[in-house]
Amino acid sequence: MGNEITDKVGGRELDVEDLQRVHKVGVPPKQKLSKEFAATLKETFFHDEPLRHFKDQAKSRQLVLGLQALFPILDWGRDYNLSKFIGDLIAGLTIASLAIPQDIGYAKLANLDPQYGLYSSFVPPLVYAFMGSSRDIAIGPVAVVSLLLGTLLQNEIDPSNKVEYQRLAFTATFFAGITQVTLGVLRLGFLIDFLSHAAIVGFMAGAAITIGLQQLKGFLGITTFTKKTDIISVMRSVLTSVHHGVNHIKKGVNPASANQIYFTGGYLLKGFRIGVVAGMIALTESIAIGRTFAAMKDYELDGNKEMVALGTMNVIGSMTSCYVATGSFSRTAVNFTAGCNTAVSNIVMSFVLLLTLLVITPLFKYTPNAVIASIIISAVIGLIDIEAMILIWKIDKLDFIACMGAFFGVVFVSVEIGLLIAVGISFAKILLQVMRPRTALLGKLPMTSVYRNIQQYPDATKVPGILIVRVDSAIYFSNSNYVKERILRWLIDEEEEVKANKQTKIQYLIVQMSPVTDIDTSGIHSLKELYQTLQKREIQLVLANPGRAVIDKLYASGFANLIGDNKIFLTVADAVLAYAPKTEEP
Amino acid sequence: MGNEITDKVGGRELDVEDLQRVHKVGVPPKQKLSKEFAATLKETFFHDEPLRHFKDQAKSRQLVLGLQALFPILDWGRDYNLSKFIGDLIAGLTIASLAIPQDIGYAKLANLDPQYGLYSSFVPPLVYAFMGSSRDIAIGPVAVVSLLLGTLLQNEIDPSNKVEYQRLAFTATFFAGITQVTLGVLRLGFLIDFLSHAAIVGFMAGAAITIGLQQLKGFLGITTFTKKTDIISVMRSVLTSVHHGVNHIKKGVNPASANQIYFTGGYLLKGFRIGVVAGMIALTESIAIGRTFAAMKDYELDGNKEMVALGTMNVIGSMTSCYVATGSFSRTAVNFTAGCNTAVSNIVMSFVLLLTLLVITPLFKYTPNAVIASIIISAVIGLIDIEAMILIWKIDKLDFIACMGAFFGVVFVSVEIGLLIAVGISFAKILLQVMRPRTALLGKLPMTSVYRNIQQYPDATKVPGILIVRVDSAIYFSNSNYVKERILRWLIDEEEEVKANKQTKIQYLIVQMSPVTDIDTSGIHSLKELYQTLQKREIQLVLANPGRAVIDKLYASGFANLIGDNKIFLTVADAVLAYAPKTEEP
Repeated sequence: MGNEITDKVGGRELDVEDLQRVHKVGVPPKQKLSKEFAATLKETFFHDEPLRHFKDQAKSRQLVLGLQALFPILDWGRDYNLSKFIGDLIAGLTIASLAIPQDIGYAKLANLDPQYGLYSSFVPPLVYAFMGSSRDIAIGPVAVVSLLLGTLLQNEIDPSNKVEYQRLAFTATFFAGITQVTLGVLRLGFLIDFLSHAAIVGFMAGAAITIGLQQLKGFLGITTFTKKTDIISVMRSVLTSVHHGVNHIKKGVNPASANQIYFTGGYLLKGFRIGVVAGMIALTESIAIGRTFAAMKDYELDGNKEMVALGTMNVIGSMTSCYVATGSFSRTAVNFTAGCNTAVSNIVMSFVLLLTLLVITPLFKYTPNAVIASIIISAVIGLIDIEAMILIWKIDKLDFIACMGAFFGVVFVSVEIGLLIAVGISFAKILLQVMRPRTALLGKLPMTSVYRNIQQYPDATKVPGILIVRVDSAIYFSNSNYVKERILRWLIDEEEEVKANKQTKIQYLIVQMSPVTDIDTSGIHSLKELYQTLQKREIQLVLANPGRAVIDKLYASGFANLIGDNKIFLTVADAVLAYAPKTEEP
Repeated sequence: MGNEITDKVGGRELDVEDLQRVHKVGVPPKQKLSKEFAATLKETFFHDEPLRHFKDQAKSRQLVLGLQALFPILDWGRDYNLSKFIGDLIAGLTIASLAIPQDIGYAKLANLDPQYGLYSSFVPPLVYAFMGSSRDIAIGPVAVVSLLLGTLLQNEIDPSNKVEYQRLAFTATFFAGITQVTLGVLRLGFLIDFLSHAAIVGFMAGAAITIGLQQLKGFLGITTFTKKTDIISVMRSVLTSVHHGVNHIKKGVNPASANQIYFTGGYLLKGFRIGVVAGMIALTESIAIGRTFAAMKDYELDGNKEMVALGTMNVIGSMTSCYVATGSFSRTAVNFTAGCNTAVSNIVMSFVLLLTLLVITPLFKYTPNAVIASIIISAVIGLIDIEAMILIWKIDKLDFIACMGAFFGVVFVSVEIGLLIAVGISFAKILLQVMRPRTALLGKLPMTSVYRNIQQYPDATKVPGILIVRVDSAIYFSNSNYVKERILRWLIDEEEEVKANKQTKIQYLIVQMSPVTDIDTSGIHSLKELYQTLQKREIQLVLANPGRAVIDKLYASGFANLIGDNKIFLTVADAVLAYAPKTEEP
């Protein structure tokens, strides 16, 4: 391997042999299977080390920490003071004033009587305040979940059949809560990550359009509307319409509804199915909001813990005449702007709602349909995020397709189809990634020992007689054949070029393995096939910088011995230095 | 950015500023959307450039090339000579002698009369010889597909109802062929890659055990078997049994069966469903074998073209009383060993089968059940590849689970469940990869400017005040939150350690982006959240070596401007040199 091989880096001589002797590719000590398995399990389900605070603590302290983990209010409540309360009070009153018209409107989207919206802004925020870990989220019914629930429920029971419809709504809410708690406890929260940001943007915009169009009916549908545009005529018309389309709102606090949930019969399964979907969508919104605001204020939000809190709140809600509540984007934004400090603002809102239910609900009798419709319309307009769509278009075209798929699916077909399309395209994107990983030809940046993609760095130059290919993904069964064939295609193209230009024949193929984070049995097979093909063509296969998992498997499978472990180098530069023809840089 | 910052590499001084000025991170010129889209499409479906031979050719030449592409025999037939024929003749006669007992046995697995096995070794090999691109594959019925077909068909129609059962078998064969042609023409051949090597090993072994156990009945079930072990008694017993369990084989060449295929009615859909499954499994076996032998002899095998050939052969087969045929592993191995040169050995086998059908079939009347059973058992024992299983165990434990899942699924439940388990586990593995990518802390290898995983290279040392993290995957919606949280977790752990040891406070977080081959909108979001969190902690976010697609998107999204593009470096070493405290190496 050439004792005198040297190279110039930055104009100075570098003695390769020395470095090579010191730095062989690291083969980490063999781990025990059980340890390896535990490590994988940990990274999959417990990467955030939820129990790390419990380590090395006394039993009694662990109990306190456990209670604090379940009820974060026990933790932050100890430092609670008057100045914090003033912020929370103002924020709470502000979101309450927003909540009341929203609740009435959203209940309508879910085909429920208006008081159920108000109920859902009383109990759930109270539960969340004790269990939630976000300091900014404001809880209540939200437009998208209300619409989704309304659509799914009326597919099963006609909303005019009030008693059964409400019972199914509570059943769905119960199972939405159970779904959320289960995901949290089983630490499967990552499943909601499969609803990509792009898909959510499209889905929300589509839902907003659908809701908006539905509301235009109420907004414009006043039968005897004046054609005059002066304010007095319009007001008279509106006031007249009050006695047409007005909802009667029942006075009093949430009645119990645990006995109304279907625990047997055909509706059990239907309620379960609807609940699972609504619960997942509700989680998506709440977790996305929670993460955004946690990043702004720099505190930690435990996704799985949040799910347990949201789930518990919905289970309790389903037993107290509430339907699915979650973190509301509009309320949370207002809450944040109004200067909330802790979840106490939710408690304040909750008490305002209680007073409303006990005392002033009858006043809302005079809220005309048009007013409710305009509240809903103005709320949902905020869901259409044109800027985000433009950004998605700029960043990733496939994301944009997922976004538009979700949007048009919701607008032209149905909420469920929109969701399915979004998830489908997102999955297809993942599959594309694992099936067709990128590969690149590398060249040497002049004056350095750095090798980079020649398409990204046009001044990078190829090394005569050596082809350097980088594979940009783990090599798994889903792409192993493609990777092998793609490398051979690079080689064939290069050989044609070499022949045409009468350059040095390719004698070495260096595969830069840095991005190859893992390899499986199919991948090893493909490497073996690649090696065999190269042998026939009298080309040496050389590997550069295989990672920890890969080097393990190269040895375990005997492949390292097959090609010879002197063919495995720490860096591409080392490999090139060992094999390059002895010429000076131009 | 420190004009005087220098570092020692291999004991010599390196001037960073110089290099830095010369080599900024490459931002490739913006590609047109249509061009970008076309490139993605090409890599997904046409990465092997199937039309590259057609470029820059005259129209007449293109016609010839097109015909040669569809019928490779027109290509290799021109150089065919006597010495090649001698090899093919010997190989063809050898595989024919293997084919006849195999065909009789496998037909039995498919619950069909023995002549249908022989028919399937006559027409399909003939068609394949003209259209196939493999020089080694020998065509015929195979054990696994026969078993699968038998199982699936008898779920629908009782095999004793011969006429309808055969019609459904031809229908399934027809649609198996259509499936194969369609996959090939639409260039969706990569779909079969989703049956991983490990899954196939497990599936085959499970099928072998199932077939073996079924045959033991025939093997041991001779009612009046002697208890003496001498050869004469055993032979007498076997010869006696001849007249018990013997199949009657119809003489004559394949009758037409196109009119027997169900093109209407309820069995159309059932035949279609069975055909799709059987067609896919048949493809898997044939393509795997084809690739193995092509790599051995170093010639190209076009997967999609192969599918068209195999599909056409089965469509024609379904109209000439054949059931699903494919490349057989045992026959191909024998063919290869016997010295075949081209697909002519298939034609030779085909003619021997023709003679057999015309002349000597009645002789097989005297083949006892026990003999057929033992032929099948010995054939399927080869399907149990213990060595491959051991290798899978050594290389990848998750692959081993997929393998065992397929095995036990087939043995204890059914062929279909086994397949489902194997595909399911393989998918889960892919999901795990895209959800929980690896990350690593990097340290500097002494005496070099190379930064490597400190777990793989224990002598790599951390740089004071700087945390270097490598992310080992594209950052997509499926992992963006995990990646962000994992990086922050590395930071928190490091900060605790720094505090405990009273070392320099972390001021810079360098993310090594080399393996991050792509990023989407969710990924950009997570980077922004990471940046915000780091800002609060007064830590600078620095990126090293973002690839081509990533740097594009960092600029398109405005993220590069947000963090400042002087925070993006060509290599980790450059970034460290710019920010490291000025200390000499120990």
